[in-house]
Formats: sequence, structure tokens, C-alpha cells
Amino acid sequence: MAKKMKIIPLGDRVLVKPISPENKKTKSGIIIPDTIDKERPEQGEVVAAGPGKEVSGKLQKLSVKKGDKVIFSKYGYDEIKIDGEEFFILKEESILAVIS
Amino acid sequence: MAKKMKIIPLGDRVLVKPISPENKKTKSGIIIPDTIDKERPEQGEVVAAGPGKEVSGKLQKLSVKKGDKVIFSKYGYDEIKIDGEEFFILKEESILAVIS
Amino acid sequence: MAKKMKIIPLGDRVLVKPISPENKKTKSGIIIPDTIDKERPEQGEVVAAGPGKEVSGKLQKLSVKKGDKVIFSKYGYDEIKIDGEEFFILKEESILAVIS
Amino acid sequence: MAKKMKIIPLGDRVLVKPISPENKKTKSGIIIPDTIDKERPEQGEVVAAGPGKEVSGKLQKLSVKKGDKVIFSKYGYDEIKIDGEEFFILKEESILAVIS
Amino acid sequence: MAKKMKIIPLGDRVLVKPISPENKKTKSGIIIPDTIDKERPEQGEVVAAGPGKEVSGKLQKLSVKKGDKVIFSKYGYDEIKIDGEEFFILKEESILAVIS
Amino acid sequence: MAKKMKIIPLGDRVLVKPISPENKKTKSGIIIPDTIDKERPEQGEVVAAGPGKEVSGKLQKLSVKKGDKVIFSKYGYDEIKIDGEEFFILKEESILAVIS
Amino acid sequence: MAKKMKIIPLGDRVLVKPISPENKKTKSGIIIPDTIDKERPEQGEVVAAGPGKEVSGKLQKLSVKKGDKVIFSKYGYDEIKIDGEEFFILKEESILAVIS
Repeated sequence: MAKKMKIIPLGDRVLVKPISPENKKTKSGIIIPDTIDKERPEQGEVVAAGPGKEVSGKLQKLSVKKGDKVIFSKYGYDEIKIDGEEFFILKEESILAVIS
Repeated sequence: MAKKMKIIPLGDRVLVKPISPENKKTKSGIIIPDTIDKERPEQGEVVAAGPGKEVSGKLQKLSVKKGDKVIFSKYGYDEIKIDGEEFFILKEESILAVIS
Repeated sequence: MAKKMKIIPLGDRVLVKPISPENKKTKSGIIIPDTIDKERPEQGEVVAAGPGKEVSGKLQKLSVKKGDKVIFSKYGYDEIKIDGEEFFILKEESILAVIS
Repeated sequence: MAKKMKIIPLGDRVLVKPISPENKKTKSGIIIPDTIDKERPEQGEVVAAGPGKEVSGKLQKLSVKKGDKVIFSKYGYDEIKIDGEEFFILKEESILAVIS
Repeated sequence: MAKKMKIIPLGDRVLVKPISPENKKTKSGIIIPDTIDKERPEQGEVVAAGPGKEVSGKLQKLSVKKGDKVIFSKYGYDEIKIDGEEFFILKEESILAVIS
Repeated sequence: MAKKMKIIPLGDRVLVKPISPENKKTKSGIIIPDTIDKERPEQGEVVAAGPGKEVSGKLQKLSVKKGDKVIFSKYGYDEIKIDGEEFFILKEESILAVIS
Repeated sequence: MAKKMKIIPLGDRVLVKPISPENKKTKSGIIIPDTIDKERPEQGEVVAAGPGKEVSGKLQKLSVKKGDKVIFSKYGYDEIKIDGEEFFILKEESILAVIS
């Protein structure tokens, strides 16, 4: 990401950088089949997390943070490109699990 | 915008001026692909923000303000023209992230 | 409107008189394209506003009032004619912004 | 309606007698176009109103009462005939405005 | 219904016995047209009523009781036969009005 | 069911054993027509009931219990086989009435 | 699962390892027909469970835990592969019953 620029997701959204297939195998032992389709969840790393969502007047914080390796559903994401790299903006709801 | 006229979005809505593609590259380093379709989020600048939305009797203020550079989803926006320029009126929910 | 008759919108509804295209340009500087379709928002003036909507036992008042110039979405409106003139009855939710 | 019979709408429902077109013009000055289709609101008179709807344990009373002249949306109504005359049973939500 | 058997509707449901067309006219003066289709409400008598529905930890009792003559919408009903006779099980929500 | 195995439905679900048509007639006098289709409710016996559903932090217990004869809607059920016999797992919401 | 890696489901999700058909018969006596289709529930073992879901500011814990044998609906699951083995990530809502 450009040095002087920062992306701050709104509410309960997170900015996620998908992990490339070769990294998936070696780093974590998890293999999500290469036949990637819309319905398959994918692996990524949280690059930035929003402050949380206000529910009944109280801020409900996110349970993921920057640096977390996550498995996320590709349903309902928004895709952006920053300096040629692809990122996803998704709601915390779309994150299925954290890999630790 | 005309000098003597002011547009005040209602509730949790914001008035956003889309940023033209040439400005996207130089200003912020973010490139959202030129193949703009309905599903792709877009960049813009908040020109006016509503007072917020009343939830259970309490006013829930917006987390974006005039001047914020934002990435917004194009789902569910309303488009208006002011003096020939195009603007979007959208709910804060459609704003994915702030660029700072 | 006939002298001896008054229309009182129910709940969070407002009665809006659309502004004719010629008035749009001169009065406010806003031009909403003439190619008016269902999806385009339109300009109008609030002629009457309901008392508000009861939410969890409390009356939530409207934030627009009689005389307000507004931009409204044409989604979900009801159309009536009074003495040959056309009016819209819509929920406050359909009002996008106030022009001041 | 038959003398010895009374219809009591349940909850937030009202029993409405539509006003015939000729009466619409002379009585109130409102003309709802004769090209009546499903989407057009219609005029009528409240013949009976339910006690209201229980929301979170509290009874939320109706804001219309017997004798009110109303404009109502024809979406989601139920139609019955009493002694050959046509009546509508609709939720208060379908009443757009009161004519006074 | 068989002597030794009792049907107790659950929650906010009621067991209703439809009134045959000939009874409709003579008993109550109400005529629901013979062209009975899915969308037309029908007349019946409440044979058994459930205890009510629990809302936010409180039991919200039904406003109809055994013996009530009712007009009900045929949307979303379940139909059963007891000793050859037809009955409907429906939610109180489907009861439009009580005839008294 | 196998002796050493027990099935405990989760939340507001119940495990129901459908009653075969011949038993329906003799036992209870209720005849649900043999033309069984998806829309017809069916008779069964509750074999196991879940602990209930947590609503706003409070456990809302079920109103049916093991041994109850019930009429249930076949909408939204899950079907399993235990030792060759067919059972339904359904939410209490799908139970229309108890036969006592 | 790889030794140095742990998958922690988010919120009210669980990680489930489906039980192979041969194990189904011998272990528990339950036979879910081999004609497995989308609509049929399946058997599995909870491998990891999320902390629960925040509802109105309170954490609502899960009622299943690691090691539980469960019957789950295959509606709305996400499928991942870990070291060649197939796992499901699903919401607790999709778990129909626990086998004990």
C-alpha cells in the first residue's frame, strides 16, 4: 500500500488481502481447492479493521484485528485494487474462522 | 454547486461527488479498475452529510463528515445532477471505507 | 387545493407536490435530467406532513415540514390527483435531502 | 349493514367502505382518476376500527376512527361483501391520509 | 369431533370450522361471494384457541375465543379433516374480524 | 431406537415420529387425507424435545414434550432415518396443535 | 489437522468433520440414507466451536462443544479442506441435534 495513504474500513468491515495459493500450502497446511468458485471460502490476512458496529447505542467491537489470518466467505464482498494488488472489503459476518 | 443553494441529506444519508478516474491515480494511489460496472465500488468525496439516524429514540451520528474521501458501494444509490455535475445520494451503510 | 378540505398524511407520511421542470432550473440551480424514469429521484415541495411514527411507544417526529423543498426517491410512492393537480404521498424514508 | 350484526376488525385493522366516484368529486374536491388500477390509492370511509396492535406488551391505538374519510392504498387489502355492498378490511398501515 | 379427543392449537393458532355458504346468508346477513378463490376471506367459527404467543418473555393472549364467529384470510392456513369434516388451523394474524 | 444412543434436539427443535395412516384412524378419530402432499399437515408423536430457544438472554421453553401426539406442518422439516425408521426433526414453530 | 495450526471459528460458528458412511452405521446405529442430496441432514463431529454470538450486548454461548457428535443440516454451510480432509464450517443454527 502507498506510504502516505491509509484505508480505514467503516463500521464492522475489514480490509482483507487474499493469500495466493502457493502461500496457502506452505504457510498453514490448509489447502482450499484451486477450483475457486463463488461459493468456496478463501484465505486472507486482515490488513485493516473497522471500529465496530453500533448496536442499540453500544459499539460492538470486532473480534478480528490487523494481522489475523482468516478464512472468509466470498459472499457479499467488495473488491478493490490498490497499486495493482487486489483487496476485499467485507463485513466481519463474512469471516468464518481465524487461523492461529 | 450554486452559491445560494445548499443540499442537506436526510437521516443517515450523504451526498457524494465521485472522483474522476485521472484524479484517482495521482491523488491517492488507489486504482479502481476502469471497467466500472454496477458491482465495483467507487471513490468519492463527501460533500454533505445528514444528521444521522434515530435508533430506539437516540440519534446515531454518522462516522463520515464533509471532506472525507471515501470508497462506496454503488448498490442502492440515487443519482442527481447539480449544475451539470453528477452526485450520488447514498446511505452511510453504502460507504465501505475512508481514505486518509 | 379546495378551501374547505385538508389532507392529513398518516404516521410518517408526507404529501408532496412535484416541481415542474421549468421551475427546477430557475429556482434552485438543480437540474434533474428530463429523462425521468422510475429510478430517478425528483424534486418537490412538502404540502403536508404526518405527525410521525410510533416506535417502541414513542412518537418519532418527522424531520421535514410543510414548505420544505425536497429531493425524493420515486420508489414506493402513491399518486393522487387533487383538483386536477398531481401529488405524491410518500414515507419520510423516501425523502433523500432537503434543499435550503 | 344488517341491524343485529356488527363487525369488529381485529388488531390494527379497519373496515372501510369505498366512496363511489360521483361522491368523490362533489363532496371533497378530490378526484382520483377513474382509471382505477391496483396501484392507485382510493377514497373511503372508516366504518369500524380495531382496538389497535400490541407492540412490546403495550397496546398501540389506531389514529383513525369510525367516520373518518380516508385515502388508502389498495395493496394488501381483503374484500368482503355485506348485504351486497362491498367493503375492504385493511391494516392501518394501508391508510395514507385522512381528509378533513 | 370425537368425544374423547381434543385438539389444542399451539401458540397463537386457532382451530376454525368454516361456515357453509347457506348458513352464511341466513345467520348473519354477510355474503361472501360464492366465487371462492384463494384470495377471498372466508367465514368460520373458532372451535379451539391456543394459549397465545410468548413475546419478549411475556405471553400475549389471543383476542379471539372459542365460539367466536370470524372472518379469516385464507392465506397461510393448514387444512385438516376430523371425522370427515374440514377444519382450518391458522394463526390469529389471519383473522381479520369478529362478527358479533 | 438403539438402546445406547440418544438424540437430543438442539434449541427449539423436536424429534417427531410420524404416525402411520392405519394408526391415525383407530387411535384418534382424526383422518388426514391419504393424498399426502407437501402442503398437508401430518400427525406424529414427539420422541424428544430440545431445551428451548434463548430469546433476549432468557430460555423460552417448549410447550410440547416427549409423548405428545401432535399435528405438524411439513414445511421446513429435516428427515432422518434411525435403524430403518423415519423421523422428522422440526422446529416447534412447525407444530400446529397437540391432540389430547 | 496440522500440529502447529489451529482453526478458531468466529461467533456462533462451528467446525465440523463429517462422519464417513461406514462409521455412521457401526458407531451410532443411525443410518442417514446413502442417497445424500443437498436437503438431507448429515452426521459429523464438532472439531472446534466459536465463542458464541453477541446478542444485545451479551455473549450467547454455544450449546455444542468440541467432541460432540451432531446431526446437521447442509443448508448454508461452507466447505474447506485441511490437509486433504474435508470439513464444514457452519452456524450453530444448522445443527439439528446432538447424539449422545
